[in-house]
Amino acid sequence: MRVYDIIDRKKRGECLTFEELAFLCREVAEQRATDSQIAAFCMATLLRGMTDEECACLTVCMRDSGAILRRPRIDGVLADKHSTGGVSDSTTLILVPILSALGVRCAKLSGRGLAHTGGTLDKLESFPNIRVDLTAEEFETQVRHIGAAIAGQTQSTVPVDKRMYAVRDVTATVDSIPLIASSVMSKKLASFADLILLDVKYGSGAFMKTAEEARELARLMVYIGNFAHRRTAAAITRMEYPLGDHIGCNLEVRECIQILKGKQNDLAELSLFHCAKILQYARGVSEEEGLRAAQECVVSGKALDQLAAIVRAQGGDARAVYDETLLPLAEGRQKIVAERAGYVYPNALELGKACAELGGGRNVEGESIDHTVGLILRKRAGEFVERGETLAEIYYNGIQPSPEVGRAFIIKERYEPLPPLVHEIIQAEV
Amino acid sequence: MRVYDIIDRKKRGECLTFEELAFLCREVAEQRATDSQIAAFCMATLLRGMTDEECACLTVCMRDSGAILRRPRIDGVLADKHSTGGVSDSTTLILVPILSALGVRCAKLSGRGLAHTGGTLDKLESFPNIRVDLTAEEFETQVRHIGAAIAGQTQSTVPVDKRMYAVRDVTATVDSIPLIASSVMSKKLASFADLILLDVKYGSGAFMKTAEEARELARLMVYIGNFAHRRTAAAITRMEYPLGDHIGCNLEVRECIQILKGKQNDLAELSLFHCAKILQYARGVSEEEGLRAAQECVVSGKALDQLAAIVRAQGGDARAVYDETLLPLAEGRQKIVAERAGYVYPNALELGKACAELGGGRNVEGESIDHTVGLILRKRAGEFVERGETLAEIYYNGIQPSPEVGRAFIIKERYEPLPPLVHEIIQAEV
Repeated sequence: MRVYDIIDRKKRGECLTFEELAFLCREVAEQRATDSQIAAFCMATLLRGMTDEECACLTVCMRDSGAILRRPRIDGVLADKHSTGGVSDSTTLILVPILSALGVRCAKLSGRGLAHTGGTLDKLESFPNIRVDLTAEEFETQVRHIGAAIAGQTQSTVPVDKRMYAVRDVTATVDSIPLIASSVMSKKLASFADLILLDVKYGSGAFMKTAEEARELARLMVYIGNFAHRRTAAAITRMEYPLGDHIGCNLEVRECIQILKGKQNDLAELSLFHCAKILQYARGVSEEEGLRAAQECVVSGKALDQLAAIVRAQGGDARAVYDETLLPLAEGRQKIVAERAGYVYPNALELGKACAELGGGRNVEGESIDHTVGLILRKRAGEFVERGETLAEIYYNGIQPSPEVGRAFIIKERYEPLPPLVHEIIQAEV
Repeated sequence: MRVYDIIDRKKRGECLTFEELAFLCREVAEQRATDSQIAAFCMATLLRGMTDEECACLTVCMRDSGAILRRPRIDGVLADKHSTGGVSDSTTLILVPILSALGVRCAKLSGRGLAHTGGTLDKLESFPNIRVDLTAEEFETQVRHIGAAIAGQTQSTVPVDKRMYAVRDVTATVDSIPLIASSVMSKKLASFADLILLDVKYGSGAFMKTAEEARELARLMVYIGNFAHRRTAAAITRMEYPLGDHIGCNLEVRECIQILKGKQNDLAELSLFHCAKILQYARGVSEEEGLRAAQECVVSGKALDQLAAIVRAQGGDARAVYDETLLPLAEGRQKIVAERAGYVYPNALELGKACAELGGGRNVEGESIDHTVGLILRKRAGEFVERGETLAEIYYNGIQPSPEVGRAFIIKERYEPLPPLVHEIIQAEV
């Protein structure tokens, strides 16, 4: 078998076998396949596509290329939630405390922000001294003892994905649904969650621009998860506008704490919805019962206590959990005011970029970020605004906000109703 | 401008501009584009195609990436003939002496054999001490003084093609008509011939398996040549069976000399046909007049003398030109006999491979080859053979002939007429 022939077959639109995909992944992992061969394979896959089963086989072979986390011997369901990335999406920091306070163990492997999107690990590091580089043993012990842990994946996880992603990033082969699905799911399958809820976002701030593309990606990832015997479902959710009112690490963590103290908005709504779905799948309760349980967990203060417990278990200073104003914000302030009256529609992509430009995001992996910068929106999507009213406040340090930021707020004369927050739920076809 | 965006546009099936292609070639030549980017571009081009003009622009930009040979100030037409490669195709060694003896100067840049195909430079080196690494000055002087030179292209010619070809070779992106056309024509355009006759072969021993594919490649290369203001035409010719009766370097050179002494067969026919076409284009004579002139040149012995002159001008020992038996053959001999009676059809690809396996060809560039090994066919395609009659003789040294070689001779119960030697002539659309 040769990598050449595998590329050639994919180029001709043929369906690759499990053996071929396993061979390819081994050659990539062991550095025998060249970057040029990876690029040709990815471009051929992007243009020729893959069958669902073929993509699932690729995903399993990618997963098997590296270290696979052993599932700890813990009774009950281990849940995971994974978002395909958006602007000010802090659902993890709300959902994990609620679910684990309700007894659903959460073994959450998270990532860092890139480009206009934020990352859970960065937000978690808003708590002083917290560690996100837990060893497999520490991770397991923490999940066993307090029911939840949030950490980064180790370097040895899915090396094939690391090589493939680095190549795709420079060869215009990122936007392939089978390649995205196998990249995301290979990492999910390398960890040990029994139940995976995928949050596949669409809209300006998401990778998928339309609900149709998001549905196709969600359908494929759900297929792959269930193919690999993980109970997997997906919510297709709106990312046209930012989630919640706060953008930027410390600002978003402040908002998460406010939501765990009872604040209501779309971020709260989405987080509780995800909790309800996971409770439904894990416990067999109805969505309504799940939602009620999650709401009661917040009202009782148990979810907030659980967030503090997680932060402390990972060595962090949890005082800010009970007083979010302890999380510092940048000194510089600037208001964005409406240039005319109308209904405001903030663009998630532009606001995500604006926050990144202030130093709150990174363009390349490994860059450090400024946790204190960001924006607070004073008007939500669809809200009426008078001329001169404040749309948002910018928090900045060294880097002055660009005068362009105002353009991220589109003001329309007529009210246009928002698409629903949750567009659709995709479950496995049985 | 970024290489990434150029790949992205080609991936979407868009037509690239001259500026984009020039930028891409510069980035490739100056090592800023990665191999993975070259591979992604080639795969996207293979699957999405190119317009004729786009491919011509790519070719010109590839040519401009390296050293371009200055046309010597020589009056009259400088002719070149280029074959896309086949088995025992020694037309160059017959055609160049005839044309230059008739006063049509031939500035011939040739290559070496690879896989099952032979190369003119290897065959030329059958003459002891001959040099094929002429400097630009030596090349020009020789063309000026004796009317012809045959040499290899220098390392600095079309560096973009060198990088692209090395990548294509391992990424299953060789078989793209625009990429083949731009690769061949970038090298043709980097030399200074005014008149280019392309011999585009089809059939088992050629890269193009069907006349239709060969026509598409020929049409595109003729378009590119004329786009770049070179008078270019193409002959689509049969390469289902070997050309002539001899396969292997010294054997083929022996046959060329025999043909220049008057031997008639399909190799002689094709070589004289090419001469006639070039005379037609260069002199405005009819094809029949051209053919007659070429035949007379052979009969008069002038062509043979001219071959000797070329060999001597390049430092070679030309005695074998007048006694081809001076070219040594391998000691080992083995006959292939017909296992049953019928009409024989020798397969060019299998016989080319058989010769290469004896050491007469190379699998990777730079390998040395054995000039003395090869095969002489005793029956031509379509000829009737009795059971037990000799089909061919194998000449070998250290490496024993494979018992499989016999399978290269397909014996059919019924006679099947051969397709014509020259399928079609493609000229520029005016």
